[in-house]
Amino acid sequence: MILITGASSGLGAALAQLYSAEGNPLVLTARNEQRLSSVADNLPGQVQAAPVDLTVPEKVAELFDSLAQVPETVIHCAGSGYFGPIEEQEPSEINKLIENNVTSSVFLLRELVARYREHKVNVVVVMSTAAQLAKAGESTYCAAKWAVRGLVESVRLELKGSPMKLIAVYPGGMATDFWKTSGKALDTSSFMTAKEAAKMLKQALVGTEHGFVSDITINRN
Amino acid sequence: MILITGASSGLGAALAQLYSAEGNPLVLTARNEQRLSSVADNLPGQVQAAPVDLTVPEKVAELFDSLAQVPETVIHCAGSGYFGPIEEQEPSEINKLIENNVTSSVFLLRELVARYREHKVNVVVVMSTAAQLAKAGESTYCAAKWAVRGLVESVRLELKGSPMKLIAVYPGGMATDFWKTSGKALDTSSFMTAKEAAKMLKQALVGTEHGFVSDITINRN
Amino acid sequence: MILITGASSGLGAALAQLYSAEGNPLVLTARNEQRLSSVADNLPGQVQAAPVDLTVPEKVAELFDSLAQVPETVIHCAGSGYFGPIEEQEPSEINKLIENNVTSSVFLLRELVARYREHKVNVVVVMSTAAQLAKAGESTYCAAKWAVRGLVESVRLELKGSPMKLIAVYPGGMATDFWKTSGKALDTSSFMTAKEAAKMLKQALVGTEHGFVSDITINRN
Amino acid sequence: MILITGASSGLGAALAQLYSAEGNPLVLTARNEQRLSSVADNLPGQVQAAPVDLTVPEKVAELFDSLAQVPETVIHCAGSGYFGPIEEQEPSEINKLIENNVTSSVFLLRELVARYREHKVNVVVVMSTAAQLAKAGESTYCAAKWAVRGLVESVRLELKGSPMKLIAVYPGGMATDFWKTSGKALDTSSFMTAKEAAKMLKQALVGTEHGFVSDITINRN
Repeated sequence: MILITGASSGLGAALAQLYSAEGNPLVLTARNEQRLSSVADNLPGQVQAAPVDLTVPEKVAELFDSLAQVPETVIHCAGSGYFGPIEEQEPSEINKLIENNVTSSVFLLRELVARYREHKVNVVVVMSTAAQLAKAGESTYCAAKWAVRGLVESVRLELKGSPMKLIAVYPGGMATDFWKTSGKALDTSSFMTAKEAAKMLKQALVGTEHGFVSDITINRN
Repeated sequence: MILITGASSGLGAALAQLYSAEGNPLVLTARNEQRLSSVADNLPGQVQAAPVDLTVPEKVAELFDSLAQVPETVIHCAGSGYFGPIEEQEPSEINKLIENNVTSSVFLLRELVARYREHKVNVVVVMSTAAQLAKAGESTYCAAKWAVRGLVESVRLELKGSPMKLIAVYPGGMATDFWKTSGKALDTSSFMTAKEAAKMLKQALVGTEHGFVSDITINRN
Repeated sequence: MILITGASSGLGAALAQLYSAEGNPLVLTARNEQRLSSVADNLPGQVQAAPVDLTVPEKVAELFDSLAQVPETVIHCAGSGYFGPIEEQEPSEINKLIENNVTSSVFLLRELVARYREHKVNVVVVMSTAAQLAKAGESTYCAAKWAVRGLVESVRLELKGSPMKLIAVYPGGMATDFWKTSGKALDTSSFMTAKEAAKMLKQALVGTEHGFVSDITINRN
Repeated sequence: MILITGASSGLGAALAQLYSAEGNPLVLTARNEQRLSSVADNLPGQVQAAPVDLTVPEKVAELFDSLAQVPETVIHCAGSGYFGPIEEQEPSEINKLIENNVTSSVFLLRELVARYREHKVNVVVVMSTAAQLAKAGESTYCAAKWAVRGLVESVRLELKGSPMKLIAVYPGGMATDFWKTSGKALDTSSFMTAKEAAKMLKQALVGTEHGFVSDITINRN
């Protein structure tokens, strides 16, 4: 079973489509129940839609309590964007951005490690190239993404010797609703689509007996 | 005038002492009014103690409204620690850690840039070597410190050409109450004291006509 | 056509096998003519073996003069290892290590950019996880690999807007002769084989219309 | 005694002046005997000029054989620059650049660790901001400087627990002859002078009983 967070749109939804088409049982989560259902209802295979707000630790625990089995793979796509010069950013949006990206990732990894550190679970954490390189006009977003990267690198050290693996994914800009909802007007016509990124990511995630791709950066041409 | 956040203990208090001894007017902030007063009351020079919770944006604005002049230097030492394997960390402490380190830094820089980007203000952001290197047992702390680093690097790009400068400081472990209050039992007898770190930092911050030290890592021997 | 450097052993030879099995025309290079022939002669498809010492710029130019067409993909696997505490390293081996890894990479990229920067060529530069993280006992090796990484990152900036793409690959330790020939005694029985790494790399290199995997780290479990 | 490499010009010469003015005995090295003498002859205190080509390991050994005592501090400023788009760089200049920056640093550190790892010696390695960030038009230079950084970080790990310390210095562009001799036409009138950088560096290098500044980036305003 594959668990995908942030599955109601963008890369998460595209991954759900690809994995579902191949017959993988899925558990999909997102905050917005309606949008999540509309994605889940259109997938062919065995799909469980589990609306959950990852910034509420009890809800994260409930999500995992509800699972019938240990997931083979968890793909954490949930997150949001918010941009602009720092002096023009709104405090309420700053708080939301930090919660949606940082807090949620800490709570998710905390629960995964607590439950499954002795299981062979691949935990794929999707960040952004903004986690690798600072950008003007993206200060709090970079802060949030650098935080997740620091988290991943630290938890990797704690998981040394464990069968659980953390896989870090850094996609560059995709042509998704992300930009619209995060208030950044961009012409994304030459960007890769979420479907393209999902295809590349899925390919890259196929490991071998003794090895795996641990870090992937995906960029547009 | 020099503004120091987190001035009620540790490096912030030690810097206040050094700068005060040289006759610099100071504005000191911290959340704990009592501890802040006990530091400020023992300093020789002109010292204003301004208790403020930097995680509340209106309070950050009020702080700067209350200043009689533009500070020459702002030294942001405020922050807190919290450690342990990720699966043992408490959600409430995780939230507090992120707010005390990430949210507060975003709100502070946001206010500083909004008000002073056309002034010659040196903004010194004190992080930790945990902002540079992931460590086991410090996952959320690393996340928080990496966030501040990403923030600083991004805002630097936004300040290109501005007289305001960001200076990044990464101190290694000091022998302060930090460890006690953050729940990590350590023998710190061979660690540098906050006073030592303050002395080195103060020396390094003395710029020249055309140049300045932009990044400093301070380690114990 | 796919050009592979360092194709006489390890990852280079394993990639040659995989691509050849799928009917891709190949040009293979290595310094050792005999070992290169023994790899090339055992491949099914259209294979040109071109012995070349990449540390000699004229030889690099001759290699490209000899090509019948622009390669679609160049996979630069050539390189060597040398390990030990810095004070025990031999000057002659240090020189060789730097030439084999740094000088050769500069000369190769220089020639590729000079000839093909307006062509759609994917240049895959295989480094090592030692290019990302310093390691004790690997000082000159890390130096050499960090150099190649700095080179790749700089040339990427020079190629902005060009159809030529640089792809950075960082494999962790593989079970190959590399260790034996570089004087490091290791039990590599649980390491991934070069064939496994080649398989993962080949999968990850399959791009889409608007995007590509630009950076890949491959680790053993 | 303080040993300074690359002391015949730029930052090395400026540091020699500052330390000499305070009465520190100095050993100065550079490749060019005449220019080295002209610097040394104009310094007030006790100064030994030792022409040496650091790319020749026997010469590096001879240098240290000739010292009357263990140096307290070694400041490694030697290095050279060479710039331009990668496809326009000359192979002979590429070789020289790598030797002057990478090979020389490996040979110097190797000798220092072999002789003094049990002594309290501060080894200051002066690189460039090009060691931290890739730049277009500086590909081989970045490669060389990233190499030195990788070397320093690795040797630091090998020196864990040793009284010998490595201090990494990253200066941004200074107004020196460096640019002229490396073929890059720049208006450096607003750059910091070597004297300014030397002053800041000297200040920052003053350690305390339990701590020291391990990494310093110096930038122009």
